[in-house]
Amino acid sequence: MKQDLDRLMQERRLDAALVLGSTLSSPTVYYLTGGAKLENVAILLRPGQRGVLIHGPMERDIAAATGLECIPITRWDLAAIVREMEGNLLRARAEQLRRILADLGVSGRVGVYGHGEIGQSLALMQQLAAVATDLEIVAEYADDLITAARVTKDAAEARLMADVGRRADAVVTALADLLTGRPVADGHLLAPDGQPLTVAHVKAFIQEQCARQGLEQPGGNIFALGRDGGVPHNQGNPADVIALGVPIVFDFFPRPVGGGYYHDMTRTWCLGYAPEPVQEAYAQVMAIFNRVMDSLRVGERCAHYQEMTCEFFEAHGHPTIQSDPSTTVGYVHSLGHGLGLEIHEAPGFRAVAGNTAVVQPGMVFTVEPGLYYEAQGFGVRIEDTVYCDEAGVFHSLTPFPKDLVLPVRRA
Amino acid sequence: MKQDLDRLMQERRLDAALVLGSTLSSPTVYYLTGGAKLENVAILLRPGQRGVLIHGPMERDIAAATGLECIPITRWDLAAIVREMEGNLLRARAEQLRRILADLGVSGRVGVYGHGEIGQSLALMQQLAAVATDLEIVAEYADDLITAARVTKDAAEARLMADVGRRADAVVTALADLLTGRPVADGHLLAPDGQPLTVAHVKAFIQEQCARQGLEQPGGNIFALGRDGGVPHNQGNPADVIALGVPIVFDFFPRPVGGGYYHDMTRTWCLGYAPEPVQEAYAQVMAIFNRVMDSLRVGERCAHYQEMTCEFFEAHGHPTIQSDPSTTVGYVHSLGHGLGLEIHEAPGFRAVAGNTAVVQPGMVFTVEPGLYYEAQGFGVRIEDTVYCDEAGVFHSLTPFPKDLVLPVRRA
Repeated sequence: MKQDLDRLMQERRLDAALVLGSTLSSPTVYYLTGGAKLENVAILLRPGQRGVLIHGPMERDIAAATGLECIPITRWDLAAIVREMEGNLLRARAEQLRRILADLGVSGRVGVYGHGEIGQSLALMQQLAAVATDLEIVAEYADDLITAARVTKDAAEARLMADVGRRADAVVTALADLLTGRPVADGHLLAPDGQPLTVAHVKAFIQEQCARQGLEQPGGNIFALGRDGGVPHNQGNPADVIALGVPIVFDFFPRPVGGGYYHDMTRTWCLGYAPEPVQEAYAQVMAIFNRVMDSLRVGERCAHYQEMTCEFFEAHGHPTIQSDPSTTVGYVHSLGHGLGLEIHEAPGFRAVAGNTAVVQPGMVFTVEPGLYYEAQGFGVRIEDTVYCDEAGVFHSLTPFPKDLVLPVRRA
Repeated sequence: MKQDLDRLMQERRLDAALVLGSTLSSPTVYYLTGGAKLENVAILLRPGQRGVLIHGPMERDIAAATGLECIPITRWDLAAIVREMEGNLLRARAEQLRRILADLGVSGRVGVYGHGEIGQSLALMQQLAAVATDLEIVAEYADDLITAARVTKDAAEARLMADVGRRADAVVTALADLLTGRPVADGHLLAPDGQPLTVAHVKAFIQEQCARQGLEQPGGNIFALGRDGGVPHNQGNPADVIALGVPIVFDFFPRPVGGGYYHDMTRTWCLGYAPEPVQEAYAQVMAIFNRVMDSLRVGERCAHYQEMTCEFFEAHGHPTIQSDPSTTVGYVHSLGHGLGLEIHEAPGFRAVAGNTAVVQPGMVFTVEPGLYYEAQGFGVRIEDTVYCDEAGVFHSLTPFPKDLVLPVRRA
């Protein structure tokens, strides 16, 4: 969490951390500014010191509200530096950064973070390293400073995430009410106009309910019927009719309108009744879901839970990516992922060498076992968002029930 | 535009372009995949060849719909490479990229693009350069390959942008109807509950109207009253009451729900009547707006229009950033910016050394002169989105009228 940043910088022997980017495109800038809408800022963090925000003067009101020490970027006049650099924008921008760091008294090891265009960032950082000879530009890869801070959430973040979970639940409840309340004819649900209810209708309804709850869906959602549910990220075919007995994978991952913390949940539903193979797969997914939830404990390797899940599915005769990394049937993904300002963030649960992530208080992550059989016309996934509180107690932030079969209205 | 990519690669003597990132966070990935929701892909472009999309197998349906040649990333088993690299994720990921490029027959100069975490991207690209000894990793900064392609829009993109402009206009029209239709008491508008109408009410109304038009506002909007309008990016104070005679800067920059092309427009309004200093500033802003619109022509330097605007405002006694780069009063920003999949993209209109951008057919950009006087309690800005068609004819995509004073309902 944010309060760990000083310690994490010291552990990494960093004299400073330089964060570049815009709130809209950089979750790190969002994280450090509380979501203030800022464009092309530089944030300087140093152990034991107040963070410095270097911002455009047009955003001076927004910057001032962040609580960071604010300096307008115009203190280092880019146009004049560009002239000095004879119109070379790359050299000018690197020189501007060098002067900013020098004027703020930064020297030594400087970690670089934030988000940007890859080639441009590479060019800029290499140029900065070339001109700022008293700096060592540190590019971290795995478990970098910001990832290590963001991997645990403080109490305020946890409250925000619980709130998003409640709002997501309201949307899912409304959707389930819609589906169970529609008239049935010829084995499918009917829309108010008497035509078959389709995935397009459902997606429009979810969108409306999200707006009502102040949620948005930057990544869309998955409402995938039958065969489509057997391809994990297939979002569903808008023209498909909601028919009884056809398994639906509904994966919902909204966040508040305008940005903030995500929720992530999946339910598998069959309207009216479920085919026997789906029931069987569902029972297995629920069994390992419950086993994982019951065995979560602080200090355990995240990969352990993936290993446990793979062993369980293998023992029940399913291929898994543990035995065949390229399988597209059986259990084909990892058990979960951290989430927060991004839908996928640390910790990872992959059972691969190098994944040293360990469950810690403050973590928020998904638990989402699933089985996928595209050729047999179904997929099954169950997913809750789980929070490990400061005392090491695990809480699902996803209250919606886990019944496979949703009853339908009978004539 | 996209069809220029081959030529642009050849001009840059690039043997290939490697694009990394996710659709949600990389407008470049969005651009090359038509907005298909893909995570952590690699896209390989080579002059004269069909693009290759290397994707996660869970996204095989989405990938297939892009029209690119698709290869699942599992062809290069990361878990196995991580084991070879003794758990070092950075070395493993770089080695995976090296093998992908080698197996696809890539050698020579490879430009790198897309979006990612800055430190991680820097580490990965430096490691790739170290292990892929037959490659020259090219990091472009200004006017890079993708920027040069995206700076002009093809006919399909222009149609999408005109459509977003029409939907934005519907929202602004509804808002103006709301404001001009509310009862007035004690010099301010009244909400339906008889309380004063506030900025918070207005923002909620805009949000509702956006949802109705299938628009979202990732960057929020600006509805800034009086003094707040004098600080260009102040988004407005929710508690402020909409009072007669108080200038409002309304800057609206939506895009379609789920991603796509932005519109960007600003109107300055006064309800009922406008104070004399605001009228005067408004007349000047309108005059230079019209002068710029009338003088737009293909082949002219973009910076020329900024110079023209600064000269005009200076001649009317206003400070500008041309005479004082750090001024926060008068004319404090550049005349416009390109827009498309990002709200701010090329071309830039800054009058600085190194800005060699020239107006070209296919460009879409804003024209947005403004004057800012925070201490005097007002700002004025007028902004249209302008499209230069293939024949070099300029079209405003922002039909909403430019009247300063909106009439109010009289008792």
